Amino acid sequence: MTRLAIIDLGSNSARLIVMHIYHNGAYNLVYHQKEPVRLSEGMSKEGWLQPPAMERAIATLKIFAHMCRLFAADQILAVATAAVRTAENGRDFLTRVQEETGIQFEVISGETEALLGYIGVINTIDIKDGLLFDLGGGSTELTLVRDRKPVQVISLPFGAVFLTERFKTEDRVTEAQLIQLRQFVLQHLDQIPWIRKLNLPLVGVGGTARNIAKMDQKRKNYPFNKLHNYRLGRLSFEDLWKTLLATTLNQRRKLPGLSAERADIIVAGSTIVKCLFDISQGTHLIISGCGVREGLFFQNYLPRQGEAEIIEDILSHSTENMLYFYKGHIDHARHVTHLATCLFDSLQAIHGLDSRMRSLLRVATQLHDIGITISYYDHPRHSAYLVENARVFGLTHREQMMAAVVAGWHNGLTKFVRNRIYGEFFDEADWQAVRKMALFLALAESLDTTQMQLIPDIAVYLSEQKATLHLLGSNPAPIERQSAERHIRWFRKEMGMDMVLE
Amino acid sequence: MTRLAIIDLGSNSARLIVMHIYHNGAYNLVYHQKEPVRLSEGMSKEGWLQPPAMERAIATLKIFAHMCRLFAADQILAVATAAVRTAENGRDFLTRVQEETGIQFEVISGETEALLGYIGVINTIDIKDGLLFDLGGGSTELTLVRDRKPVQVISLPFGAVFLTERFKTEDRVTEAQLIQLRQFVLQHLDQIPWIRKLNLPLVGVGGTARNIAKMDQKRKNYPFNKLHNYRLGRLSFEDLWKTLLATTLNQRRKLPGLSAERADIIVAGSTIVKCLFDISQGTHLIISGCGVREGLFFQNYLPRQGEAEIIEDILSHSTENMLYFYKGHIDHARHVTHLATCLFDSLQAIHGLDSRMRSLLRVATQLHDIGITISYYDHPRHSAYLVENARVFGLTHREQMMAAVVAGWHNGLTKFVRNRIYGEFFDEADWQAVRKMALFLALAESLDTTQMQLIPDIAVYLSEQKATLHLLGSNPAPIERQSAERHIRWFRKEMGMDMVLE
Repeated sequence: MTRLAIIDLGSNSARLIVMHIYHNGAYNLVYHQKEPVRLSEGMSKEGWLQPPAMERAIATLKIFAHMCRLFAADQILAVATAAVRTAENGRDFLTRVQEETGIQFEVISGETEALLGYIGVINTIDIKDGLLFDLGGGSTELTLVRDRKPVQVISLPFGAVFLTERFKTEDRVTEAQLIQLRQFVLQHLDQIPWIRKLNLPLVGVGGTARNIAKMDQKRKNYPFNKLHNYRLGRLSFEDLWKTLLATTLNQRRKLPGLSAERADIIVAGSTIVKCLFDISQGTHLIISGCGVREGLFFQNYLPRQGEAEIIEDILSHSTENMLYFYKGHIDHARHVTHLATCLFDSLQAIHGLDSRMRSLLRVATQLHDIGITISYYDHPRHSAYLVENARVFGLTHREQMMAAVVAGWHNGLTKFVRNRIYGEFFDEADWQAVRKMALFLALAESLDTTQMQLIPDIAVYLSEQKATLHLLGSNPAPIERQSAERHIRWFRKEMGMDMVLE
Repeated sequence: MTRLAIIDLGSNSARLIVMHIYHNGAYNLVYHQKEPVRLSEGMSKEGWLQPPAMERAIATLKIFAHMCRLFAADQILAVATAAVRTAENGRDFLTRVQEETGIQFEVISGETEALLGYIGVINTIDIKDGLLFDLGGGSTELTLVRDRKPVQVISLPFGAVFLTERFKTEDRVTEAQLIQLRQFVLQHLDQIPWIRKLNLPLVGVGGTARNIAKMDQKRKNYPFNKLHNYRLGRLSFEDLWKTLLATTLNQRRKLPGLSAERADIIVAGSTIVKCLFDISQGTHLIISGCGVREGLFFQNYLPRQGEAEIIEDILSHSTENMLYFYKGHIDHARHVTHLATCLFDSLQAIHGLDSRMRSLLRVATQLHDIGITISYYDHPRHSAYLVENARVFGLTHREQMMAAVVAGWHNGLTKFVRNRIYGEFFDEADWQAVRKMALFLALAESLDTTQMQLIPDIAVYLSEQKATLHLLGSNPAPIERQSAERHIRWFRKEMGMDMVLE
């Protein structure tokens, strides 16, 4: 058991997360605190950290140090970014921080910041190519990702706080201010040849990106309370940006989804995003809730587990993490997954579902019993709740819901799926896919009723009217057989043919 | 860490539960299996266990023994009830069971069975006085409970399977059969003077009682998937009973909520309940999902923890269990509970809520952070889900939902409460109470923002227009103060007066 505290002191806010790593390798976030320190306040003019800002930071870091003790952190990884990096008195300030709080900070370069953000994103969002931006208060890091690798990196010396101070865009912006602001940003972006006309998704990290997502979710009455991997199109973004330009500071303070303490800097921040969209011809915007902090975590955690910094299959990796975290019956979960996958593959010609659905089925199957941790009775419903809300990485929101429904449906249809938000995400084809996958899971689960792995494999023979499932292995397994036979009718309904067990 | 397996071999079914007891004393059900063995089949005529029934039982118990190994049970507590108890070949059968499965059964007397059922009920349902019945396949135990103590006990030598065989009530019953059946039951009940005209609630344990509840829930489209502590009135019960009398076996097999394997014996079973209602003049029926098995568990578990067999305050006990199970931050949870209770008590004159609400507030407050186990982000909503579905004992379903909403609402109103089933359970007064309690929790939580217990106590002074909260202790606690001040408006809205912090 290890507890890792990670502190990120930015220009706008200071953040602390505490990660718990269990003996079996599973990890979990156990604490998160964010304080709007605004360390870079006044820096754009003076070039050094101002005394009131430093006082705020030290008061906050004292609390962070206390929380680290309270949560028994074994190790504290603390990094400082743009504000400290560029301030003339940055080093002196960190010396004082160490004296007064005991926390030893590392000042990271813009490139390191970009790299950490990239690690945080690439290990938690399933994306091959894209333009990553980490938009902070005092700097903006851009990373061009191709085939999941960072092929270009740059750190720009301005962020949402910096630009707000420089162009005085706290309150309602004038036409002239906006032109100046955009010119400034575009001038910098124009000098980066590799961001032009990329035609790729933008992946945004940082408070500005998160607040854009929150506002968009509020406007659309989005029924799922999750930011990470939220996607919005270019039109939605531009509409939102124009709304922000047309409001006063006071109006923005009341805007649903926007943090009041960010109301002043959101115009400058979202204008950077707008410029990135324009220059790179971004297809859409994906929000990442994971960035530098998670990057630091993975950089530290993965090597401990004997793994590389970049996880190859983030969906499998995070699913396994869930399974270990909830102390599921690993052997049973694995065997049911094997059998369900086997059914999926053998019946491919009939169900016609694609390989993405195969991955979803595997997630649902591995996690189908984790709800036992909440209550044994009604545990499929609890499994669905956990899968829906868990930090499973590598699925879109819609896919995560599909996996949840399959996991929760493994004893046949229950009422819970009808009362829920799933209808907001699924079309008829999704429901069909979900029903078929639920059937495969139910069958596979039946074929390991005693959890003894009596049936090592299934061979399926298809004819016109029926699917014959040969239960392999040398064991009689009467309970498994009987249990599976209960699904004959369901099989006929979903697959349009009879199922025979042999 | 200990794992305790409990097996209960009844006349109708065999059941296995596995309880996990953690180092910190928290316990949880990790496995449950029920098999419809119908061991007493043919016994009413022959007086001994029939070979096919014994074969079924042994095959099932072999699986149970396997599951006990699979779940690494440290100890198996196995009891056999009516069928084995009354069969002439009961002892021989158990010798064979031990040889073939390794499980050593204890045959318990009717009185012990009643006592265990009583322990299971009284530790999980908040009831002072009532007539408990444990209606099995081959016997029915009655316990009169006064002031939570068992003052009278009797075991009757008939149950749902026995009566079904004797009066052949499997299929549609004739008028004549019904009269004979009732006469038989009433004759026995008439000889028990202490059950007459009790005017108390009936508390039912066993499959018949559970199935009555399930059917009633289906008829009423009850929105909560929970049996334990479900209540139904006399009229509802009689209506249901009459429906059962008017149906054939095949019709009953399709009746929503009724297990198909119980469709034959439900007429006899529910007729016993009907007779109990009539003779005792029962006020209503409460279903207990806990009985002999849970009684055995508590009898074994509680002394290990240095506690008496009968828990004094089951609500506090199970709430503590939850808190330890989810490894909550105990000190913070306790301190917030203390502060919230303090607010509740000091503001009694204004909010006008009763002591029951005070208990609910304490549950919600202690468990307000357990949702962190699911995901730190959005954890109040997850806490609500866990409180709603957790095995918290001593609350009605409505009360459990109220505690859930308060726990989930601790950062102010969120959308989740509107989308849920709560509206089915709460009237306007309940919502008001919930809102006020949520405010107290939010305030108390704010007053321990840093989790440092900087504010040991609050003294509240009330005047006409305002409530002055004196934050006691020698610490400045600026963060707590600032955080609490965010609730001034909410306070004014709910309490109709200003809140001043001093």
